[in-house]
Amino acid sequence: MSSRTPLTKAEKVAYALRHEKSYSWHKWFSVLAVLTIIVSLLTYYLFGMWTEPPPLPKLDLEQHWGPYPIDMKPDNSIRPFTIEFSDVIVNDLRERLLHRRSFTPPLENAGFTYGFNTHFLTQVLDFWQNKYNFKEREQFLNKYEHFVTNIQGLDIHYMHVKPKVPGNVTVVPLLLIHGWPGSIREFYEIIPKLTTPRPNQEFVFEVIAPSIPGFGFSQAPVRAGMGPIQVSVIFRNLMQRIGHDEYYVQGGDYGSAIGSVMATLFPENILGYHTNMPMVAVNTWVSIYTVLGSLWPNFIVEPSVQDRMYPLSKHIGKVIEETGYFHIQATKPDTVGIALSDSPAGLAAYILEKFSTWTNMENKKASDGALLQKFSLTHLLDNVMIYWASNTITSSMRHYVEGYKQLMFTDRIPTEVPTWGIKFKHEISFQPDSILKLKYKNYLHSSVVEDGGHFAAMELPDVLADDIFDAVHMFRTFHRKKRNNKASDKPITKESTKPDAETVNKVEKESKVNFETVNKVEKEPKVNFETAKTVYEFTVKDIQGQEVKLERYKGKVLIIVNVASHCGYTNSHYTELNELYEKYSKKGLRILAFPCNQFGGQEPGTLKEILQFTKEKKVKFDLFEKIEVNGENAHPLWKFLKRIQGGTLGDFIKWNFSKFIIDRNGVPVERFGPNTSPLELEPYLEKLLG
Amino acid sequence: MSSRTPLTKAEKVAYALRHEKSYSWHKWFSVLAVLTIIVSLLTYYLFGMWTEPPPLPKLDLEQHWGPYPIDMKPDNSIRPFTIEFSDVIVNDLRERLLHRRSFTPPLENAGFTYGFNTHFLTQVLDFWQNKYNFKEREQFLNKYEHFVTNIQGLDIHYMHVKPKVPGNVTVVPLLLIHGWPGSIREFYEIIPKLTTPRPNQEFVFEVIAPSIPGFGFSQAPVRAGMGPIQVSVIFRNLMQRIGHDEYYVQGGDYGSAIGSVMATLFPENILGYHTNMPMVAVNTWVSIYTVLGSLWPNFIVEPSVQDRMYPLSKHIGKVIEETGYFHIQATKPDTVGIALSDSPAGLAAYILEKFSTWTNMENKKASDGALLQKFSLTHLLDNVMIYWASNTITSSMRHYVEGYKQLMFTDRIPTEVPTWGIKFKHEISFQPDSILKLKYKNYLHSSVVEDGGHFAAMELPDVLADDIFDAVHMFRTFHRKKRNNKASDKPITKESTKPDAETVNKVEKESKVNFETVNKVEKEPKVNFETAKTVYEFTVKDIQGQEVKLERYKGKVLIIVNVASHCGYTNSHYTELNELYEKYSKKGLRILAFPCNQFGGQEPGTLKEILQFTKEKKVKFDLFEKIEVNGENAHPLWKFLKRIQGGTLGDFIKWNFSKFIIDRNGVPVERFGPNTSPLELEPYLEKLLG
Repeated sequence: MSSRTPLTKAEKVAYALRHEKSYSWHKWFSVLAVLTIIVSLLTYYLFGMWTEPPPLPKLDLEQHWGPYPIDMKPDNSIRPFTIEFSDVIVNDLRERLLHRRSFTPPLENAGFTYGFNTHFLTQVLDFWQNKYNFKEREQFLNKYEHFVTNIQGLDIHYMHVKPKVPGNVTVVPLLLIHGWPGSIREFYEIIPKLTTPRPNQEFVFEVIAPSIPGFGFSQAPVRAGMGPIQVSVIFRNLMQRIGHDEYYVQGGDYGSAIGSVMATLFPENILGYHTNMPMVAVNTWVSIYTVLGSLWPNFIVEPSVQDRMYPLSKHIGKVIEETGYFHIQATKPDTVGIALSDSPAGLAAYILEKFSTWTNMENKKASDGALLQKFSLTHLLDNVMIYWASNTITSSMRHYVEGYKQLMFTDRIPTEVPTWGIKFKHEISFQPDSILKLKYKNYLHSSVVEDGGHFAAMELPDVLADDIFDAVHMFRTFHRKKRNNKASDKPITKESTKPDAETVNKVEKESKVNFETVNKVEKEPKVNFETAKTVYEFTVKDIQGQEVKLERYKGKVLIIVNVASHCGYTNSHYTELNELYEKYSKKGLRILAFPCNQFGGQEPGTLKEILQFTKEKKVKFDLFEKIEVNGENAHPLWKFLKRIQGGTLGDFIKWNFSKFIIDRNGVPVERFGPNTSPLELEPYLEKLLG
Repeated sequence: MSSRTPLTKAEKVAYALRHEKSYSWHKWFSVLAVLTIIVSLLTYYLFGMWTEPPPLPKLDLEQHWGPYPIDMKPDNSIRPFTIEFSDVIVNDLRERLLHRRSFTPPLENAGFTYGFNTHFLTQVLDFWQNKYNFKEREQFLNKYEHFVTNIQGLDIHYMHVKPKVPGNVTVVPLLLIHGWPGSIREFYEIIPKLTTPRPNQEFVFEVIAPSIPGFGFSQAPVRAGMGPIQVSVIFRNLMQRIGHDEYYVQGGDYGSAIGSVMATLFPENILGYHTNMPMVAVNTWVSIYTVLGSLWPNFIVEPSVQDRMYPLSKHIGKVIEETGYFHIQATKPDTVGIALSDSPAGLAAYILEKFSTWTNMENKKASDGALLQKFSLTHLLDNVMIYWASNTITSSMRHYVEGYKQLMFTDRIPTEVPTWGIKFKHEISFQPDSILKLKYKNYLHSSVVEDGGHFAAMELPDVLADDIFDAVHMFRTFHRKKRNNKASDKPITKESTKPDAETVNKVEKESKVNFETVNKVEKEPKVNFETAKTVYEFTVKDIQGQEVKLERYKGKVLIIVNVASHCGYTNSHYTELNELYEKYSKKGLRILAFPCNQFGGQEPGTLKEILQFTKEKKVKFDLFEKIEVNGENAHPLWKFLKRIQGGTLGDFIKWNFSKFIIDRNGVPVERFGPNTSPLELEPYLEKLLG
């Protein structure tokens, strides 16, 4: 039979494989996934699975994870610890690297798409064997103080770095939690940035960076059942041992999961939770939001970051492609762990593949995984060495067995702990604030960064450190506000937020806040925009987050305008508004500018970025916090403005740089659209200013 | 803060984790999965994704998989091949085993639930290092003739075992395809059983057992794109090179997938497809059937095997738990392959975990994975050695990248090739015949075995070999029938199915069958039970599958009865029917017994098992093929019987052992229910027999 025999079936298949669009498995998976999500809504009603968990017995805060029998005289001391790459370990390792097997060559042009490229691996292993300076790196890794102390039967290792501070700076404790396949090594670059006082901040961090049990130099449990909940208990007990009842938590990856669970279970200990992987495990509402967003993205995610989430098909395909490790670690960690324990080449490939792909999915196309674009081999191998020397890859992977199912549970429990996320561009997961707020009832802010990936602490330590400072600044403000609200009904002024000099240079012990009480107090009667008479009845927040009562503008003539940094009108408007301000401020003109991202996503930045932008623009008038001007969540002030001064084609604000003029009695008297330039307002202003 | 501080959140979680039933992730996954399946039905209408693929260009039957440039004078010779465990390989391996790392101890009482138990692994590795006799095993593996030949740029390895046969036995070629993580080693025990003539069979097998490209001693492709479709092309070309245009295919696991694709793409080459993992990749109809079955199991699966499929939640949970390897191999095969190539301990654990769990999921509970209950370490390590010596674990795993997505496509294309499945009790996947028939239009039979698991050829070679013989017997009958139907309209009698003596001792070349033509011819006018006058108008099949025209019973008095092996009535009825037969057969009584599984699933067995049972019962009367007596698919004879002799509470048959009496003119004259004992029929029989 020759190959020219007609083969209609075969032909169909061949053609379809090459051309038929519907064959795309991304599409198929995504359609199914989307529909799955829809039906999880049905599940809600049909199975009542999502009712709140009932209140019940105690979590075992002393659960023992070491071998039995329990030592009846436990050693609760804190002992210094030194990382050691012994000669035995190093010689054995070099021997293994020298005698490594010849690996299967990569497929033609595969890059990293089939996993770690074995051609590039050869370079990595040669470097490790011949150039990685074990003694020097050992010294480097010991540059911070390390300790171990026994918690619940396990020796828990941690780094403890205290800042040296001048007298007027408050030291606040920060628990930094690493992820998988990371380690404490993730934090070496960022620690100095967190423990060095900054001129513009009244506080600085004391960093505690533990190894998760079964990772690196923390002992592993000897029996099943340890997941983020149990790690949370251990870390809470560790912080207590160290002497901290109240502290901030920061984490990414698994560290983020643990931080989230700590905030959920121990709100009395956690003053604030900062995460560089803000995420809520899938549940009914998350699913509903996600699906709705795929139909009406503006409904749940800002336009500027919609491509991080939609089209859903693409992102679900990505998730499927990147979660094989998760699936096998959640089911057979010991099997795959055997090979990874035995082969340094295998271990390096398994770990470093993640540093390539999770830093940027596009890196898969490169034959070297673009690994060295962001990291040095030395730094990457430091991290691998921690797994190798401690032989903990298996025990680290075992956490996945409990991990996700615990999170699917705990993420259904809301937390009041103030939360702040930073979203790096290439992070493997993305969720909009609207979803995050389902769990984090005080989700204060997301910083959106147009760079960086999953291993932010190593890749962009400056950006991450700045953001942690910003976040903790806000967390502190948040708590002060609550304290003040609790203490009195006095109006909150900027003065009341100044740091208490007596707390200087001591570890801050912020007063315990009873959240339920505070929440009740916090619900001060809101101004009804439908009955308000003047703008003076409203309160807004300035760009620093401080509340400002508009009555402070009594007797002034005001321009209230919604602004954006990336609009076609931006340049001319900023310039002319500045001009107006210079010309009329002495007569009593004030300009109140409200950044808003509702028009073309042209104000996507963080408050800090906006501030930076307006500094460049030499803006002299008053800048307020980013708000919404249309829709349900529009600021009451703007609802009021629109009520009093309706628009031509409807009351809603049409675009950036809509301008309202308020007279000296606080009454909105004129409204102008974006195509009216500020200088055209002069006649009206002159009339009102007299 | 003491541990007695109230922790309501934590308490809830702890309790819920321990007690709340709804927390079960199996339940959660399964509910979602079931609903997913429901909506895939919607998908069908909404996206029109499941329309037939269009007819189009050619499949490349000469696609080149080796490095370029292509050798313009290709070597098409068939060369002998010898498996070699060289001293270099063996010494290096022993060195690695000796210097293996100390592995993470298993969690307390974990058995194999976290993957391969490292305590037991130590025994395996000690045996491999010190007791596995490499030279002896090399000899053993070379006991069959091995060859390689270059197909499409790759050296393809295969074993070729020809039987020695007496003059009256037909030799038929059988392509035996192994799976992952199996190899040709799977077939060493079964090959003699397939290549030895049997007294009751007119044929015997010539076995061709190739290594799949990239497995063992077949070269791996150097570029991406090889999945079951491409392997099918290569194996078709291999069989052609060997000299076979028409042959049978048998496989399990990936071998089953390849066999299925070959039957789909090359129906003109494949005379029959036998599989020990009968399966169709999920598609809309498979989903619909599966979901319907979870509501009304009797609708799609026989009661005796319902527990292999339902509750769906349990089985989906099992699938999720067992497919981590699949997920990582389909996405990052090279990453995990590096460690497995480098570490014999890791490779053995990775492969042998499957031999434990896939043989029986319950084995996970045992600390030794119950591995040695069914296999010997020597045999298991033979298989591991094939991967180790050839260093092909990575290239074998790469097939998963293409695998499932190709199957999701090809399994939507029906095939007319006669198909036969054997379902071992602990096989990891199970599908009922109703689903299999969606794809296999000539799905002849499922043998249901209450023993055995995934690696049937190694675990139960006798059972599998017997079943392959039975299947091919039926395949041959199937083709003969088609040929005869095509050749003439003469009634088919047993005589016409006797083997042609001229084909003896030659490789059988069965005439090519044009399926479309045959299908049309086959649709001979069926007897209309609504107009039939006598039973003589009907044709049935005997227990061997041979057609029997009931006109052969002309002039006899008949009892027609539906029987079952496991009914409360079985004993008394069989005994009394025998008694009646002995007493009245000479006067002209014939008893026609039809096994039927429609009542309480009390006739679940294969034809062979039924035959065995009736032999034990010393049944002397005539036994026919298993049929349905009620419903759409009831045999026309039984529809006729019910029409003429309606029942008391409706015409349908109420239970096993309903008895009809037929007079000497072929007319049903009496009907008796199961609670009438056969001996009570004597007065009626005596009257009719005269």
